[in-house]
Amino acid sequence: MKWIGEVQKEGVKLSISVDREIYRGRSKFQRIDVVENRTMGRVLFLDKTFQLTERDEFIYHEMLAHVPLFSIENPENVLIIGGGDGGLARECLKHNIKRLDLVEIDEKVIEVSKKYFPTLNVSFNDKRMNVIVDDGYEYIKRVDKKYDAILVDSTDPVGPARVLFSEEFYSLVLKRLNENGIFATQSGSPFFYPEHLKMAYDNLKKIFRYVKVYTAFIPTYPSSFWSFTLASMNEIVRRRERNFETMYYNEDIHDHPYIPNFLKKLVQ
Amino acid sequence: MKWIGEVQKEGVKLSISVDREIYRGRSKFQRIDVVENRTMGRVLFLDKTFQLTERDEFIYHEMLAHVPLFSIENPENVLIIGGGDGGLARECLKHNIKRLDLVEIDEKVIEVSKKYFPTLNVSFNDKRMNVIVDDGYEYIKRVDKKYDAILVDSTDPVGPARVLFSEEFYSLVLKRLNENGIFATQSGSPFFYPEHLKMAYDNLKKIFRYVKVYTAFIPTYPSSFWSFTLASMNEIVRRRERNFETMYYNEDIHDHPYIPNFLKKLVQ
Repeated sequence: MKWIGEVQKEGVKLSISVDREIYRGRSKFQRIDVVENRTMGRVLFLDKTFQLTERDEFIYHEMLAHVPLFSIENPENVLIIGGGDGGLARECLKHNIKRLDLVEIDEKVIEVSKKYFPTLNVSFNDKRMNVIVDDGYEYIKRVDKKYDAILVDSTDPVGPARVLFSEEFYSLVLKRLNENGIFATQSGSPFFYPEHLKMAYDNLKKIFRYVKVYTAFIPTYPSSFWSFTLASMNEIVRRRERNFETMYYNEDIHDHPYIPNFLKKLVQ
Repeated sequence: MKWIGEVQKEGVKLSISVDREIYRGRSKFQRIDVVENRTMGRVLFLDKTFQLTERDEFIYHEMLAHVPLFSIENPENVLIIGGGDGGLARECLKHNIKRLDLVEIDEKVIEVSKKYFPTLNVSFNDKRMNVIVDDGYEYIKRVDKKYDAILVDSTDPVGPARVLFSEEFYSLVLKRLNENGIFATQSGSPFFYPEHLKMAYDNLKKIFRYVKVYTAFIPTYPSSFWSFTLASMNEIVRRRERNFETMYYNEDIHDHPYIPNFLKKLVQ
């Protein structure tokens, strides 16, 4: 049996069997692999790093969409930076929004998702969706419209995505948010990479009045314990009830972020 | 580099590098391996299955000890079934209890822990601790004393530990609990093995008036999302405040069990 794996932390590796090779290619930015696995379904790797699996992607995407979007009264205009696979967009489009701009740097990720991930790519047919192929940092520097929510679905801050965790970026984000707007970003594994979360948290604190961390378990990400960070100039509380089904997100989870003591110490 | 891994679900494998082999042996019941890993510290495998790592064992042990023990007013007599490594005992002994009986079937696990896991074995020197080498099911059938809390720290219900998830076992447990007593068991991964949790939950429901599930993330267990199940004839709520430090457990986590929607559906 052939396996493909990711060293998620020195000496710790998560592997899946390659039951079928679906796609292998290289874009301007990264190597892209799609494989089929008997347990996780189709799996997308970027530079040999787990990006998503059909079996568990609902967790990451629901949590990065619904926690921020249910924290504002009336989200109309939403911006996603990254997220070219379309999974986060799919969840955002369950809200009664008017327009969704998605800025993905790697056109190839969009193509691959459209072709090989039928449960993700539905969002690309939604007429509220507007795909922009661009660098997220450059886009936000240039654009002059304002959003109700800006969501960052990026890779971890070890490569090119590092700028998306910087104070400079967050100050540009603030300028592009409406008064009651909210920002959310994935912020890494608090267990294996507390420094990633710390970077996002500390830099957001310099720019925003309110910053709040929440978590989810994601089986295929390093340590499987994942953090997200919200930021706003407005107090961050849940402001709406859900009117659609979810597989992971619910109001209890939203209202009571799961913060073990070791994480509490990190972000106090 | 040499690796040792566990197939946690068909086609999904978690491996760690063997930076040093510490111990390899076979008891009457199972193969036992202790290895040293640069990230996880010393790691105990039983039949090539992750049992604990120095780096993350605090999560499982704190959660299996403190949630039940803070749910009763005055725990004095506690029984652990399994847990021969001493980690759960260490956490229980942080409470002001009078006596702790630990019933472990495999003497070799106790020996190995005493010798190779300095942060676990402290409990074996506590004079409140009473170690019994026996089959947990046989012990509970035979013993006639009563306990305030009975905790099951077993392997998963696929091998010999299956009986510890049965209705028969739970009815014996009830007989050995004081009126306000509480029972807690690990109940597997709700993500990869919902049928294990379901077995524990449904069987406990037949015997106890109140049954309640809670969860934790445990990086080295299958899917890293883990469930525990409490049972009592008394309403299950937190009844005491913590008077010692913890690295994972806290009152928020206790009061608001983290139950995503897919898990809620399973245990409703």
